[in-house]
Amino acid sequence: MAKQEKTFRPKARVPKGLRDVAAPNVRAEARMLARIREVYERYGFDPLETSALEYADALGKFLPDEDRPNEGVFSFQDDDEQWLALRYDLTAPLARYVAEHYDGLPKPFRRYQAGPVWRNEKPGPGRFRQFTQFDADTVGAPTIAADAEMCMMACDTLEALGLQRGQYRLRVNNRKVLDGLLEEIGLGTDAADRTHMTVLRSIDKFDKLGRRGVELLLGAGRKDESGDFTKGAGLAPEQISRVLDYVESGLNEGSADRGAVLDGWRKVVGNSAIGREGIDELTEMDALFTAAGYGPDRIEFNSWIVRGLGYYTGPVFEAELLFDVKDEDGNLVRFGSVGSGGRYDGLIERFKGVKVPATGFSVGVSRLQAALEALGRVEKDVVAPPVVVLTLAAANMAGYQAMVGELRNAGIRAEMYLGGSGMRAQMKYADKRGAPVAVIEGEDERAKGIVTLKDLILGSEVSREITDNAEWRQSAAAQIEVERSKLVEGVCEILARHGLHSGHHGR
Amino acid sequence: MAKQEKTFRPKARVPKGLRDVAAPNVRAEARMLARIREVYERYGFDPLETSALEYADALGKFLPDEDRPNEGVFSFQDDDEQWLALRYDLTAPLARYVAEHYDGLPKPFRRYQAGPVWRNEKPGPGRFRQFTQFDADTVGAPTIAADAEMCMMACDTLEALGLQRGQYRLRVNNRKVLDGLLEEIGLGTDAADRTHMTVLRSIDKFDKLGRRGVELLLGAGRKDESGDFTKGAGLAPEQISRVLDYVESGLNEGSADRGAVLDGWRKVVGNSAIGREGIDELTEMDALFTAAGYGPDRIEFNSWIVRGLGYYTGPVFEAELLFDVKDEDGNLVRFGSVGSGGRYDGLIERFKGVKVPATGFSVGVSRLQAALEALGRVEKDVVAPPVVVLTLAAANMAGYQAMVGELRNAGIRAEMYLGGSGMRAQMKYADKRGAPVAVIEGEDERAKGIVTLKDLILGSEVSREITDNAEWRQSAAAQIEVERSKLVEGVCEILARHGLHSGHHGR
Repeated sequence: MAKQEKTFRPKARVPKGLRDVAAPNVRAEARMLARIREVYERYGFDPLETSALEYADALGKFLPDEDRPNEGVFSFQDDDEQWLALRYDLTAPLARYVAEHYDGLPKPFRRYQAGPVWRNEKPGPGRFRQFTQFDADTVGAPTIAADAEMCMMACDTLEALGLQRGQYRLRVNNRKVLDGLLEEIGLGTDAADRTHMTVLRSIDKFDKLGRRGVELLLGAGRKDESGDFTKGAGLAPEQISRVLDYVESGLNEGSADRGAVLDGWRKVVGNSAIGREGIDELTEMDALFTAAGYGPDRIEFNSWIVRGLGYYTGPVFEAELLFDVKDEDGNLVRFGSVGSGGRYDGLIERFKGVKVPATGFSVGVSRLQAALEALGRVEKDVVAPPVVVLTLAAANMAGYQAMVGELRNAGIRAEMYLGGSGMRAQMKYADKRGAPVAVIEGEDERAKGIVTLKDLILGSEVSREITDNAEWRQSAAAQIEVERSKLVEGVCEILARHGLHSGHHGR
Repeated sequence: MAKQEKTFRPKARVPKGLRDVAAPNVRAEARMLARIREVYERYGFDPLETSALEYADALGKFLPDEDRPNEGVFSFQDDDEQWLALRYDLTAPLARYVAEHYDGLPKPFRRYQAGPVWRNEKPGPGRFRQFTQFDADTVGAPTIAADAEMCMMACDTLEALGLQRGQYRLRVNNRKVLDGLLEEIGLGTDAADRTHMTVLRSIDKFDKLGRRGVELLLGAGRKDESGDFTKGAGLAPEQISRVLDYVESGLNEGSADRGAVLDGWRKVVGNSAIGREGIDELTEMDALFTAAGYGPDRIEFNSWIVRGLGYYTGPVFEAELLFDVKDEDGNLVRFGSVGSGGRYDGLIERFKGVKVPATGFSVGVSRLQAALEALGRVEKDVVAPPVVVLTLAAANMAGYQAMVGELRNAGIRAEMYLGGSGMRAQMKYADKRGAPVAVIEGEDERAKGIVTLKDLILGSEVSREITDNAEWRQSAAAQIEVERSKLVEGVCEILARHGLHSGHHGR
């Protein structure tokens, strides 16, 4: 047994589509989450943490952005034969929680939750099978003011993270308007209808494919650049022109105001009861936005926002970044959607049999973080690397231990070198760690009761200018000697030179 | 299709052994994690976040505390037939990470990681299948000073969380001492040997069963109170007395000093090379502890600390709480171990074929949080509930929206009531939310250009003393009228009465 174990040597590799996040990115994400939390809390939301696993039947058969039943979820059978699944979003577990604890909750119930979600999908560049979402939801609020609040909070959140107006837009539509459109062209409102789905999916592509592309997708179909053919919805020319009227009436060019968009939509879908209801809701939202000072430079009405085909029943929204960024290879990258949400009055009904109104917004933290980074809006790591105390005499470990102890008690990040190597390797280590200071106490120093402090930041600056290696070692500026009892003061002095806080308090 | 979906009604329930964590506990855990992080960072550790999923072969076949291969892990097959598993601890993923990125890492490599881990085990009271760990590990440090540092950092961590000296003890042993003991009684050091395992497991039970219980387990076996029989190790009387000598020589009564314990152990295992090596290592650790002021009131040497049978190869440590707490039913509850760790020089070798020294410590956050709570050491929730703005006129939603906007901009948590109910239900909601203030603007108020502010904290105090309900409603103190333009000032005044911060900044 033990021998077998020894001969088997697994390959060390992170699983496909997953990743390890190193220190600077862990800290950057934590700062982002803290900022978002601050906004959500100010709006009155409280945290809730559901577990990563749910019974598969509770999660339901839909993914928010996809219409592939039974796909996209990591699931497995428990001992008792029940199917467990890793959550694919934070909304489905919330629906389960609310249904389970309905009577005890204040209503409306406002909660936020941040955490990883998992999608069993084909990974791609920048597309991982585990990523972080940060959701806020209001359950039990039938009023459209709840949706309006979500939209305004989404704007506040993006701005709290460092985005400026004009760099993002919250795009809003209403599933009822889309339902009205489908009714108007004679398709009915059965969400599971194939043509229905194909039409919505075509509208959703307007941003990418433009008028001609959508026209083809609504009709016989479209061949893309690679030659792949996508079968169309097969609509009649009159139906197609109606859909295109709707899409283009929502075209927001420049300063188009929200009222004008609604006027355009009313012409197309105003004869349908459900369509009118949708437009009335958006009219109410517009009034709230305007009263609170959220103009069309922040929140626009947009006809090609469709969102997933799953559970939305009213207003839907998507936060888009409007800027492009060049990637490492100089290619333009558009980040697109970094958050989305909407009203889903039917999700809790799955459990309870009665409609429970709910609306929410979810920030795609991982994608937004990548975008902010590309934009240079992520602050540098605020945690300075530690001071390194070299350990040059094995017999004096207790003495070195005392030094790091003193530094740490003064609130300075510090470590003693714990390897078994000599001075050269230890200095290399301090360098690799990015340590601002190396503390050296060899035989000579100990005999004299002093320690040598190397200013490694200054040292590397000096060494860049001086080619002779021996020369910079002697450089008085990059190296000072202090009495052993003045260790902390000496280190603080060097840290202060470089504007590094002498004390470290959390991240 | 759609109809079938509608008729199926899943039961809303959290999966077996899992749980939802409500706001106060989410915030309390976040504060704990922040405190621990502060200590770990001061010691020079940096964060790393591996994903929740690993290839099953990379996790290996052992759980840290168990010796049941292939059990205890949630695993499932990926599309490409490879087995994925949810991590059961944070050490195995670290080993995989280090093996994968070995050449690029500074060595020693210090990292911390906090996060959920999953165990596919039978749940019990206080025993969940998902719980939080917070690990710090030093990889590539062969010196025993690395282990000593782990122990001292563990003490600092527990004290940073509010535990006082005497309330906890860090108990240290060395697997090499145990190996020496087994060698001395003629059992060899093959960790997979059945008798070997039974002997170690018997020693581990000394705390619970005492001398007589262990004696039986080392011999023929032991029948417990319920009548269940546990087969013993079947040792000869001479072997048994040797093992008991060892165990009792480590008995720390009162102020027993660490040197005395080592002297006792030396008598029993000093003839074995591996045993001597273990004692020498502990002697070195003792010197470092003493030099840094960590006396036996914080760190003790303890003979019955064995730890899991899996991967430990040197010093092992366990943080024990020494106090008992009464649970809700008045029963004494001993929390026991709230953290543990040790040296595991072989874990990375599984991948690389060469030994990579490593040592670490893991805080059992969930259990420690329960203990701190029982001890009353968890601070009250620092986030005040939101001020609630009632929405009494549907036509005036924009006005109410403006009020919450003003409050939020002043840094006050605030929400407007988003349900569709009347005043009575809205006041009940504010009460359930624990809102300190309700803001009321009805027809009358609007006509007069004022708002009514109800001090709900004072109101509930008054109502406890006054039996006549109508009376407290009139109570001038619990209710004030302010000009609409003085809304923020008025709310701040009431919040200040109750010592609530007028501004809220993160948690």
